[in-house]
Amino acid sequence: MKRYEQQRHFLKSNFHEFKHIKTDKIKGLAQPPIVKPFDPKSVIIDLPKISKDVVCKENVFDIIDQRRSTRFYSEETLSLDELSYLLWATQGITGMNKNGLTLRTVPCSGATHTFETYLFIMRVEGIEQGIYRYLPVEHKLLFMFELEKIEQKIDAITLDQPFVPNFAKKASVLFAWSTTPYRSEWKYDISAHKKILIDAGHVCQNLYLASESIGAGACAIGIYDQKLIDEILELDGDDEFVIYLGAVGKKRE
Amino acid sequence: MKRYEQQRHFLKSNFHEFKHIKTDKIKGLAQPPIVKPFDPKSVIIDLPKISKDVVCKENVFDIIDQRRSTRFYSEETLSLDELSYLLWATQGITGMNKNGLTLRTVPCSGATHTFETYLFIMRVEGIEQGIYRYLPVEHKLLFMFELEKIEQKIDAITLDQPFVPNFAKKASVLFAWSTTPYRSEWKYDISAHKKILIDAGHVCQNLYLASESIGAGACAIGIYDQKLIDEILELDGDDEFVIYLGAVGKKRE
Repeated sequence: MKRYEQQRHFLKSNFHEFKHIKTDKIKGLAQPPIVKPFDPKSVIIDLPKISKDVVCKENVFDIIDQRRSTRFYSEETLSLDELSYLLWATQGITGMNKNGLTLRTVPCSGATHTFETYLFIMRVEGIEQGIYRYLPVEHKLLFMFELEKIEQKIDAITLDQPFVPNFAKKASVLFAWSTTPYRSEWKYDISAHKKILIDAGHVCQNLYLASESIGAGACAIGIYDQKLIDEILELDGDDEFVIYLGAVGKKRE
Repeated sequence: MKRYEQQRHFLKSNFHEFKHIKTDKIKGLAQPPIVKPFDPKSVIIDLPKISKDVVCKENVFDIIDQRRSTRFYSEETLSLDELSYLLWATQGITGMNKNGLTLRTVPCSGATHTFETYLFIMRVEGIEQGIYRYLPVEHKLLFMFELEKIEQKIDAITLDQPFVPNFAKKASVLFAWSTTPYRSEWKYDISAHKKILIDAGHVCQNLYLASESIGAGACAIGIYDQKLIDEILELDGDDEFVIYLGAVGKKRE
């Protein structure tokens, strides 16, 4: 098992190494921005106010019981109300702490929330196909660009994997979460990275449950063409890069 | 940023390295057991049948909206029905796939579910204080042993951390999830480890939401004394070791 030694080590708590480290926070270095800045001249789309009305299966017990990874979707579009709800459920801001960090619908070690949410939108009512970014502070969508041959590009990102059927392009929307690790490294240094992956799981579980509650299904995608998706989303692949994907579409009857 | 290069690399999809690897599964090596075996002569405690009746806040919208990491608990005990529900919500088996792998209340890449759930039980109705293990196939509890000075031991596991107040010992129950990485390495080799951490996040998010739905609060603990907790739980620290913790207790009024 020596083969996996380094990887297994990464799964463990490294507090005894960490506690001797002077973090950038302790050194007094400036805290990085809590969200990615954006050009205010961008095309910004208002999202409908979050409403409980979109929930058609409301009891959390049934939702947990019936959730399954869903790889086959109907042709039905998601409504903008539904997309608004899914974005809120996965990264919505529900408060601020005393240090000016955001509290969200998902827990995060030290409220350092390192994620940005990019969307490959295929079929959402009233929204053009293309690539968007969620602005959690404003609860709005930023239109980034149209993506020619969007389905083929999604295929290229997620294809050629014996264990992931070629389903993501048939979703209504593909969530792609990036991480900006320095938001957490600033505070947690070498302890940041384990936390970031666990936090991605928190986020995606809410996507699963919120999807189930609106008659949709989700499927997480953990391996993908890293270089290609980072290039498509115009991420530098070092300070910000994609960490996890989740496809969502209405369930077939 | 060279300092974090290796850790950041670990957050990325390594599919292009992985696809050239002949996994143990492909080599035809035997699949490891899907759950940890146990001695049938152990003290086994029946858990009540899962029931929706324990849910007092049912709407998933309210639950997602109101969930917060909770570090202060009332003196109230959890009922055994409630504990049964939390175990089910985090690792309960809800089906089998065609390869004999378990489908659970949480998603997991390739249904390789690498976790075992250990409990430090402080205050659960009708259950002696001590260390227990969840048997997901049977939906029962296995009593492992009493732990002398259980609160002090929990302090030692989670103490001395500037950013984690000393709250875990005041919980009704402390969940400690271990991972047995080979269950996933067998199939995913070097791609296993990123997935395992994300999967731990899926599990813990369900603990948060299920706790919220019964008037309890949860708080995840991502760093801890790895060696100490593995020793206490009699894990070898290599083939099985603790990966994440979650404290749960009833909320204060």
